[in-house]
Amino acid sequence: MNFEILKRYKTFGGETVFCEHESKSTKTKMKFSAFLPCDISKVDSAIIWLSGLTCNEENFITKAGAQKYLAGTTTMVICPDTSPRGLDLEGEDNDYDFGSGASFYVNATRAPYDKNYQMYDYITKDIVSLLKDSFKVNKMSISGHSMGGHGALVIGLREKGMFESVSAFSPVLNPVKSPWGQKALSGYLGDDEGEWEKYDTTEMLAQGKSFSSKVLIDQGLADEFLAEQLGMERFLDITEHDESITVNKRDGYDHSYYFISSFIGDHVGFHLGELGK
Amino acid sequence: MNFEILKRYKTFGGETVFCEHESKSTKTKMKFSAFLPCDISKVDSAIIWLSGLTCNEENFITKAGAQKYLAGTTTMVICPDTSPRGLDLEGEDNDYDFGSGASFYVNATRAPYDKNYQMYDYITKDIVSLLKDSFKVNKMSISGHSMGGHGALVIGLREKGMFESVSAFSPVLNPVKSPWGQKALSGYLGDDEGEWEKYDTTEMLAQGKSFSSKVLIDQGLADEFLAEQLGMERFLDITEHDESITVNKRDGYDHSYYFISSFIGDHVGFHLGELGK
Repeated sequence: MNFEILKRYKTFGGETVFCEHESKSTKTKMKFSAFLPCDISKVDSAIIWLSGLTCNEENFITKAGAQKYLAGTTTMVICPDTSPRGLDLEGEDNDYDFGSGASFYVNATRAPYDKNYQMYDYITKDIVSLLKDSFKVNKMSISGHSMGGHGALVIGLREKGMFESVSAFSPVLNPVKSPWGQKALSGYLGDDEGEWEKYDTTEMLAQGKSFSSKVLIDQGLADEFLAEQLGMERFLDITEHDESITVNKRDGYDHSYYFISSFIGDHVGFHLGELGK
Repeated sequence: MNFEILKRYKTFGGETVFCEHESKSTKTKMKFSAFLPCDISKVDSAIIWLSGLTCNEENFITKAGAQKYLAGTTTMVICPDTSPRGLDLEGEDNDYDFGSGASFYVNATRAPYDKNYQMYDYITKDIVSLLKDSFKVNKMSISGHSMGGHGALVIGLREKGMFESVSAFSPVLNPVKSPWGQKALSGYLGDDEGEWEKYDTTEMLAQGKSFSSKVLIDQGLADEFLAEQLGMERFLDITEHDESITVNKRDGYDHSYYFISSFIGDHVGFHLGELGK
């Protein structure tokens, strides 16, 4: 196995594991967590979970309560860290919404981030290869929250055929128009907004791109970031007639893991269905 | 209401809340979290959860995944902090297993802890009154983990008729014989071991005390503290013929919240049944 298990905890009859491996894309060690509901030799499919700003590989696996819904299946979930760590790049650790914990899942082209912040490739190449080669996974789905919801949608949209299903909680849908997105995309990609649009779900859909799988989105209507950061309105306008996309608006729910935990069972069920389980 | 809601999050159709109130017993402000599965006016019963060493009011409510199993019921869970905080007593913040986060749920008699570390009274008087007066709860159960499992069992054993059911994960069953217990009980109560036994489940059972309700205990067999700290062997000897106590030994599970989350559904179900739900 080309990864090291650092910690392991029996959970719901399976195992929650914390792991580390060398990434070709980021040229660093990267950490991830995973839940294996069965013996590793029996795993055949995976959900990739991408976390949001400030998170690392721990948040989802400790707080979302997803293990319960995967127990007894042969589908694992894998939760990569949200950026390279500890590179000591200029500005890397100054802000919660840029650098460490805030990769936005792009391949950076602007120095000094271009060398290591290759997180789009990390997910679509390193993590996907790891799943296929080390875990013998033959089908995959992808999901995420906030910045990670953006990541899941962008990757799902660009990598046609790679995933059986795509889902997101409270995603940053139109980052070129959100303060979080503008700061991250300019910092990682430079000032050409045409380059930013390659990592913007809403702009890519507006330009005619389409998903090759079903998409499920849950959005809390009491989300403190909904109006300023998430770009839901323009996304809904553009996808109004797209039957592959389901958006559930949830009255009273905010941007937190309390929201995610309340509906993660629905998302796991959606992915298991699309994975043919 | 004689408590203040500091934060609230819609969760599984109900609300997870973080609160603060004045405690007569500890003479300090104390924090607690709770999950209200329905409107507060409809709540009629409660499970008190006591957390373990180093924990505060957050751990259980964010990590155990209990909300799912209470959703749709009229039974709340309340999770008090594990000690008074910030008193600046000598030694209060030096060790993980004494002082802050480590009250062991006793009424301290030894200076300087005797003034505020009245956590037995805090649970059995302040929290119980709060539940009855502010939440209009008419039936209660109690549960906890490790030091909090010890607290739940000791309180359940001493307060006959107060609780419909008692449960514990990985409890410190015989603290007078465990290093954690000896350090805490001597520090809070002084050197008279006869006083310690008033807070020791196994010693009280050995002396003929009995529970007035059913008791459910889950214990992981890969628990790193089982041999040295928890006292399971002597407890099992003494309770061998006691049909009110069920002990589930769980192969491969450790002392963590991954263990708790795997079986909290069983414990919630047990309490709901005994609460007549």
